[in-house]
Amino acid sequence: MTAQILDGRDNAKTMRAEINEAVAAFKENTGITPTIAVVRAGEDPGSVWYANAIKKTMAGRGMDAQLHVLPETASEEEIVTLVAALNADPGIHGIMIQEPLPKGIDEAAVKGALSPSKDVDGVHEVNAGRLALAAPVGRPPGVGAFFVPATPAGGMELMRRHGIEFSGKNAVIIGRSPIVGKPMALLLMRENATVSVCHSRTRDLPGVCREADILCVAVGRAEMVKGDWIKPGAVVIDFGVNDVEGKMVGDVAYDEAAQVAGMITPVPGGTGPMTNIMLCLNLLEAARQQAG
Amino acid sequence: MTAQILDGRDNAKTMRAEINEAVAAFKENTGITPTIAVVRAGEDPGSVWYANAIKKTMAGRGMDAQLHVLPETASEEEIVTLVAALNADPGIHGIMIQEPLPKGIDEAAVKGALSPSKDVDGVHEVNAGRLALAAPVGRPPGVGAFFVPATPAGGMELMRRHGIEFSGKNAVIIGRSPIVGKPMALLLMRENATVSVCHSRTRDLPGVCREADILCVAVGRAEMVKGDWIKPGAVVIDFGVNDVEGKMVGDVAYDEAAQVAGMITPVPGGTGPMTNIMLCLNLLEAARQQAG
Repeated sequence: MTAQILDGRDNAKTMRAEINEAVAAFKENTGITPTIAVVRAGEDPGSVWYANAIKKTMAGRGMDAQLHVLPETASEEEIVTLVAALNADPGIHGIMIQEPLPKGIDEAAVKGALSPSKDVDGVHEVNAGRLALAAPVGRPPGVGAFFVPATPAGGMELMRRHGIEFSGKNAVIIGRSPIVGKPMALLLMRENATVSVCHSRTRDLPGVCREADILCVAVGRAEMVKGDWIKPGAVVIDFGVNDVEGKMVGDVAYDEAAQVAGMITPVPGGTGPMTNIMLCLNLLEAARQQAG
Repeated sequence: MTAQILDGRDNAKTMRAEINEAVAAFKENTGITPTIAVVRAGEDPGSVWYANAIKKTMAGRGMDAQLHVLPETASEEEIVTLVAALNADPGIHGIMIQEPLPKGIDEAAVKGALSPSKDVDGVHEVNAGRLALAAPVGRPPGVGAFFVPATPAGGMELMRRHGIEFSGKNAVIIGRSPIVGKPMALLLMRENATVSVCHSRTRDLPGVCREADILCVAVGRAEMVKGDWIKPGAVVIDFGVNDVEGKMVGDVAYDEAAQVAGMITPVPGGTGPMTNIMLCLNLLEAARQQAG
């Protein structure tokens, strides 16, 4: 068997067209251009690159991105003051704080300063809490609207658009980070999957993986998951981005895995392209909510 | 094999003595009596009973409980106004909102009005979010202090005090409620257990349970978990409280299960008595934090 490729690039292309149309309609109805503020302190090369990529992505959708760059020497108070000003600015609908922040800055305090309704990156504790409290499927009664981090949201969307059903499925997540593993677990739980979260302390990880109908991997270890860890026909979602001698590889040994899985995301070109798209969707949603 | 009983009553007795001592020392050092405000609207008999039980429990620890009772006809605004006044009252260290609230009241809005630092019941989205974002083991860097709902916290404490180790263990939770199942999963994840969350849509639930070193059940179905669902020697934590012809029974068929399990909580007298104790601990902790 050779797995069907869950093509994130192709999917993102379709979604870009949909979003362009939705943004154009929103702008026509409201006169508002959805705008994200990207906040950075210092010149971390990865952050600089990513901020420019966001600017380009948003421009391509008819939306706007403003870069707010403080010096590496900025104090926590200066960063929080900037965030507070952006919270209060009606022309800004979403705010992303780039990490790493300079040493000595309390990241939780900076993220906590975000208005949850502008936290399109889903990092604020209120958004994390609403996801954790959310009932199965749909926006739950008794929990407000919330934003989910773009990476796991993109993985879910990629699966949904390939007709993958979640209810009653055995989903195994390797990795329990607050921005990928844990929100992915909570998203799959809401869709009535049976969800197991594994990590470095898990005994017989290959054996647990072999039970998975849906296997999601977000550990940051190149090609850790082997072909014989995969149940024949399973869906494999690889969130890994590892540099191996200049080549980008995922957390799954793709060539082996693709012989066993039913569907698999390639790296690059799988979950990666979906992340930016979900950020665009979150920004449009934030602008909609703020427009009433 | 007959399981060792995880005796919540006995454990609670030990902890009551510890808390009495800690409260006495805190009062002597600060002159402050930790005080919880219990907010209710209407006269739901279960809520009335529980409010009185809390009053008695707190009095026994040298702490205080104030009951704030609004009529069944209270508006959301009136309840939120009361909560805001209690947030602002320096003589109140913890606030519990009793459910059910009258029909038509938005529970999320009322809970959201709580100050997270007085939310000793762990229901506020900020506390849920901090638990979800928390790194493994210990209070994580980058996440503020938070309160965990008393029922799962009590289950964890009961296991800890019986020397049960979590790291690398296979933990299975049946039930995914926001006040028991999900926080229990997140607590076990922090302790490096491999955690699976099951529910009514899980396929082959008995088979999944048979893999559990630690099996936690919080579904509200009398004696649903049978003896042959349990791995020999497993730890079984039963959060169920069901009324069967006037008799209180758990979610686990105790007599069968006790023949197979290594350790098991009885119902009544297992996780139940731990819940009030953890609420006492949360109140003392809140008073400590507010005293600086």
